[in-house]
Amino acid sequence: MALIVQKYGGTSVGSTDRIKNVARRVAKWKNAGHDVVVVVSAMSGETNRLIDLAQAIQSIPDPRELDVVCSTGEQVTIGLLCMALIELGCPAKSYTGAQIRVLTDDAHTKARILDIDKDRIQDDLNSGKVIVVAGFQGVDAEGNITTLGRGGSDTSGVAIAAVLGAKECQIYTDVDGVYTTDPRVVPNARRLKTVTFEEMLEMASLGSKVLQIRSVEFAGKYRVRLRVLSSLTDPDLSIDEESQSGTLITFEDDGTMEAALVSGIAFNRDEAKVTMRGVPDTPGIAFKILDPIAKANIEVDVIVQNVGTDKKTDFSFTVHRNDLNKTLDILKPVQADIGAQDLVGDDKICKLGLVGVGMRSHVGVASKMFAALANEGVNIQMVSTSEIKITAVIDEKYMELAVRALHQAFELE
Amino acid sequence: MALIVQKYGGTSVGSTDRIKNVARRVAKWKNAGHDVVVVVSAMSGETNRLIDLAQAIQSIPDPRELDVVCSTGEQVTIGLLCMALIELGCPAKSYTGAQIRVLTDDAHTKARILDIDKDRIQDDLNSGKVIVVAGFQGVDAEGNITTLGRGGSDTSGVAIAAVLGAKECQIYTDVDGVYTTDPRVVPNARRLKTVTFEEMLEMASLGSKVLQIRSVEFAGKYRVRLRVLSSLTDPDLSIDEESQSGTLITFEDDGTMEAALVSGIAFNRDEAKVTMRGVPDTPGIAFKILDPIAKANIEVDVIVQNVGTDKKTDFSFTVHRNDLNKTLDILKPVQADIGAQDLVGDDKICKLGLVGVGMRSHVGVASKMFAALANEGVNIQMVSTSEIKITAVIDEKYMELAVRALHQAFELE
Repeated sequence: MALIVQKYGGTSVGSTDRIKNVARRVAKWKNAGHDVVVVVSAMSGETNRLIDLAQAIQSIPDPRELDVVCSTGEQVTIGLLCMALIELGCPAKSYTGAQIRVLTDDAHTKARILDIDKDRIQDDLNSGKVIVVAGFQGVDAEGNITTLGRGGSDTSGVAIAAVLGAKECQIYTDVDGVYTTDPRVVPNARRLKTVTFEEMLEMASLGSKVLQIRSVEFAGKYRVRLRVLSSLTDPDLSIDEESQSGTLITFEDDGTMEAALVSGIAFNRDEAKVTMRGVPDTPGIAFKILDPIAKANIEVDVIVQNVGTDKKTDFSFTVHRNDLNKTLDILKPVQADIGAQDLVGDDKICKLGLVGVGMRSHVGVASKMFAALANEGVNIQMVSTSEIKITAVIDEKYMELAVRALHQAFELE
Repeated sequence: MALIVQKYGGTSVGSTDRIKNVARRVAKWKNAGHDVVVVVSAMSGETNRLIDLAQAIQSIPDPRELDVVCSTGEQVTIGLLCMALIELGCPAKSYTGAQIRVLTDDAHTKARILDIDKDRIQDDLNSGKVIVVAGFQGVDAEGNITTLGRGGSDTSGVAIAAVLGAKECQIYTDVDGVYTTDPRVVPNARRLKTVTFEEMLEMASLGSKVLQIRSVEFAGKYRVRLRVLSSLTDPDLSIDEESQSGTLITFEDDGTMEAALVSGIAFNRDEAKVTMRGVPDTPGIAFKILDPIAKANIEVDVIVQNVGTDKKTDFSFTVHRNDLNKTLDILKPVQADIGAQDLVGDDKICKLGLVGVGMRSHVGVASKMFAALANEGVNIQMVSTSEIKITAVIDEKYMELAVRALHQAFELE
């Protein structure tokens, strides 16, 4: 008997039959005595259909209006799922982001959640209803509709779990948990029963598709217990730590984590590398380069600055591939302004990273990683490290080879 | 230089190309110096697609959740139209029914507008923006999403024109005005340059598809000048009484109406006839029959009660064909309760009516009508009259024949 928040993604609600199936699963939890709040995405394909409509009208759609259009996808799903629940005799009520005032900032298409009004949800839960909330969307302080960006429904789920003080937030996907790496690349990749928030965060930022990064940050910040589960297998209706379903994201001090040196290998090829060569090495130069990028709301990831010769330095960072051209356009005047020699972009890269809290107390992880890559003849273009992660940028074509070599070298099978 | 409200229906915004075309039309009005508020429907086919999704889950979808689903159709259109306007360099901003608080009662799927918050629209108009509002939708006092029922976007347009005190509300359709009757049935039907509100109301209630009836009532009540126009021809950008575009719906005391005996012939075959035979003729019997129907929110039209023999009477009325089975189900226990002999439904009927303010001061319209029908061998099943309308219910199969005969008899060519 607990309050749980469940989030179902676009594939899980991709047809009316699948929506009925989700309703049956939700009803099982409800009938087992739990209070259930469900957060859903748009039916798979729907968000792309809406974006296509928008782009047929404006190649770069007005962000405010794009959010108005795209937020309808989740709104359709909440209504349909409630109908399916009511049809099963399970009282249910839907809410859009606006209706429970999921308050966000005003950064259209990539807004951040600031607050949620829990009173209406709490009243409905008290009256025995299942609550179905549209993920991915909110409203700014002026009442304009905002969206959280791709994958934002995970964040909606976690945020609602946080404000309601839910026992667990369950993220249902088409995989049954978090793996040591992508099983499509390394067939003997292994499911992790638990993974720490910090590891999950580092893996998500490296492109592990299981959870949206902001949702993991949110869960860590508000200490929401998060579990990744498959929506295709039969649910285990217990929600204690002993449950063997999926992967539980744990807090380090739970003492339940696996004590591995390296927990997993994440990778992605969604990014591009931008390099400004021959930058005069004076204070404030990094700010001059990155500030206009940040102001354009472009997210920058790995940043590397090398000491150079003649008081010149090379400055590199990665951005999402979709933002590469925009980034180069923004930096051209900056290049002239600061007198840098050269500005180049490269979208044929892959970012990969080893993640593990065990790294903290062990040396030699980096050298073992570099050795494994060198053995396969893979050149490393950029390296960056954090407490529990080592990130390397390599040529895209070596991606699979590198991941397999590292998976074997760190005995993750 | 005036404030005008324009409403574009589903066909006018049925594709991204058509939406761009509407944007060009709207921009022309804006560039001619007018302030413009646009009300739009869902793209043609979209509402049906959403209802199909809902019915794949529940044969009779939960009304609250159906409104959540169906209201997304208009929301997509407002976003897309704003993008098209912005692309043309015309500043624009969209609003859902909830965002400008189109307050309605809580009769889901057929709600009535009670009030609209005009402040946000007025502020945006003052800053030079075109405002695009989602028709067909509102919110009840609790913030639940409601819809106004089919054709409700016309009502949204008129209601917004009323609260803003607009100079004119223009309803754009795929026909260029109101005709003496349906040109598909009578090829030489004639476009009316003006028609009075009362005539329009009577014609709408008889199934003339040009305007939704509630919108005409609303326009009459709040004295909104209403014009029906084609969205296919080039707009005449003047909005005074001399404009020759479309059909202007006039107030009788404008003195601009055509002094015809009969203005038009309306007809529909969307209705079904319900007859309770051998009803004991006691006071309150009509109430006993109609009250449960009204409570089920079923709209009743023509009602006829004939004096019978043996203190028994026959009681007939028409309802929408979709409501026939439900009506019969409701009346079965009533029949037993009041001791009526027989209860029959007939959905093979056609309702047709002559409409004209000229009727008031002329006698003989009814007898001329009956003669014309008798000449063609058409039997009249029910007759009902009002000040400016004569309605007859006939066998459906005579519909085209009867309409042509009456069009000729009253010299409407």
